[in-house]
Amino acid sequence: MSVSLTIALDAMGGDQAPAIVINGADLARRRFPDVKYLMFGNENQILPLIRPRKRLLDVTEIMHTDVLISNETKVSSALRRGRQSSMHLAIDAVRSGKAAGVVSAGNTGALMAMSKLALKTLPGIDRPAIAAIFPTLRGETVMLDLGANVECNAKNLVQFAIMGDVFARTVLGTVQPSCGLLNVGSEEMKGHAEIQQAAAHLRKISETINFHGFVEGDDIAAGSTDVIISDGFTGNIALKTTEGTARLIKGFLGEAFRSSLSARLGFLLAHRGLRKMRDRIDPRRYNGAMFLGLTGVAVKSHGGTDAFGFANAIGVAIDMVANGFNEKITLGLKNHGTIESEPSEAATN
Amino acid sequence: MSVSLTIALDAMGGDQAPAIVINGADLARRRFPDVKYLMFGNENQILPLIRPRKRLLDVTEIMHTDVLISNETKVSSALRRGRQSSMHLAIDAVRSGKAAGVVSAGNTGALMAMSKLALKTLPGIDRPAIAAIFPTLRGETVMLDLGANVECNAKNLVQFAIMGDVFARTVLGTVQPSCGLLNVGSEEMKGHAEIQQAAAHLRKISETINFHGFVEGDDIAAGSTDVIISDGFTGNIALKTTEGTARLIKGFLGEAFRSSLSARLGFLLAHRGLRKMRDRIDPRRYNGAMFLGLTGVAVKSHGGTDAFGFANAIGVAIDMVANGFNEKITLGLKNHGTIESEPSEAATN
Repeated sequence: MSVSLTIALDAMGGDQAPAIVINGADLARRRFPDVKYLMFGNENQILPLIRPRKRLLDVTEIMHTDVLISNETKVSSALRRGRQSSMHLAIDAVRSGKAAGVVSAGNTGALMAMSKLALKTLPGIDRPAIAAIFPTLRGETVMLDLGANVECNAKNLVQFAIMGDVFARTVLGTVQPSCGLLNVGSEEMKGHAEIQQAAAHLRKISETINFHGFVEGDDIAAGSTDVIISDGFTGNIALKTTEGTARLIKGFLGEAFRSSLSARLGFLLAHRGLRKMRDRIDPRRYNGAMFLGLTGVAVKSHGGTDAFGFANAIGVAIDMVANGFNEKITLGLKNHGTIESEPSEAATN
Repeated sequence: MSVSLTIALDAMGGDQAPAIVINGADLARRRFPDVKYLMFGNENQILPLIRPRKRLLDVTEIMHTDVLISNETKVSSALRRGRQSSMHLAIDAVRSGKAAGVVSAGNTGALMAMSKLALKTLPGIDRPAIAAIFPTLRGETVMLDLGANVECNAKNLVQFAIMGDVFARTVLGTVQPSCGLLNVGSEEMKGHAEIQQAAAHLRKISETINFHGFVEGDDIAAGSTDVIISDGFTGNIALKTTEGTARLIKGFLGEAFRSSLSARLGFLLAHRGLRKMRDRIDPRRYNGAMFLGLTGVAVKSHGGTDAFGFANAIGVAIDMVANGFNEKITLGLKNHGTIESEPSEAATN
């Protein structure tokens, strides 16, 4: 794919950093040979790993710093003392226009707080949201917020819906994406006041957003709508519950195939089909949570992913930049210019 | 199992009612031969189905009514006009002492509202909660609330923890059950004010409740704690997300095994092990959501279950009665007598 742009990488974030970042970038390089990288981190650790990878070295500029944000660093102290950290410098490269997007597998809270501060929210967006793509029975669904905002008012939820709609159109290529609001029941009268108000507003702007109404937890995997909107608390619980359930079934499945000689043989025979299935729900394929609503592209990789997963997170950032996601969000918001003056503003938060 | 008591059944609740209720009771009868049933519903529909089942007929008294609460009935109208419904009469049999517990596969909202009104909450419990047992990598975990209370204050959450603790001890037989509070992160400072206050209180009474701290969505299936506490909104989303994810993987797995001749053969060879695995996560095995915190035992069966699932819901009700769950809750609450006067009372709701 011929895309020519620069991505900033936080080389020091993630459980296996900087190795996964370098190996991930090298994998991404094969898919996007024209992309360049600004790699922020400790040169003494990066150089020995990158030197054998001549082609990656050719497209990478290493920006040395020995400050790093760990997973244990509190957000407040990251903001106070992290200005020279690899994470902050990588974000700052996007702010200053040296890079078109940033990818980090480090501390989520710090990455979000620093990105928000450095990149600012887009005009018309009060709060950024974390979005990710879920595999479903019908294809793929994008869901947000997955944890940036523990509490959301109706206005936030409506803004998330617009961002999700634009994301599905531009990055996933869905025509007229349908949008559902996560709730405890599909009946109209159910749920919090914030959800009720958001639903009322979304029904009003149904000419521009294809609002499907309320959806429930099982609609995520069913793929009942192309976009699912939720506050960050509920979305995070749903995301992690999905991961936990998948791991449980994988564990039980492994035991089943080890339970007898005949089961082992059965596994060998069904191996190709099973591998295809595993690939379809492989969390590494869906790695890369997007911070939507900022003036720059920022993608959070899972901290425990491998090079394949990290390469996918880089791919997500490139897709967002190449598809002009942020420009289209801004346009989309203009089409829904009424949001900010709606009564939903009065929702508690 | 020799348990001698009477269970009231709402014969008209559920997608396949009254057939699943009658067939379910007949299955339960084999496990609990000494249990008697009061079966409420339309005699004209019940009699033809129960007549061929002589042994069930021997232990069942049919109480005719032609009023029924459908899934579409609004809670308010169920409360106003449903006094002669099979659901309400079954609950009332528990209130009046004619039955030790009630099981219904009907409208959840109506069942909860009617049960609350007729049976009242236990002394020391402000709100009942819906609880269910989840299969986990380490065994079984009980989680509550799964939808009775969309919003909960800290006091409610602490009361849920005590009920969950007693449930795990008495019904699941867990010694010193550990208890986790569902949150978006395990760090102490995360989450809503209500959750923070509930955690502070649970830490204070850690001599009686083995409070493990915050847990995340993936801890449910991991079985990180024996009891998981949540508000009803989040709990319901987590429950349904689990169901949806399991269905997705089951769907993909089915496709994998149908993808080639060799995969089909593999399935046949591994069939026994796979069946065991399927049984371990069979939602019918975990059917029967308990309404905890009422003066009587009330169990909600999934509306779409079959006779096997309904029999399990009956088994849950019998287990709760036979293990003296409500008496032990009352005792448990006495041991934690301080809850009601705690600052957590001031939590917004």
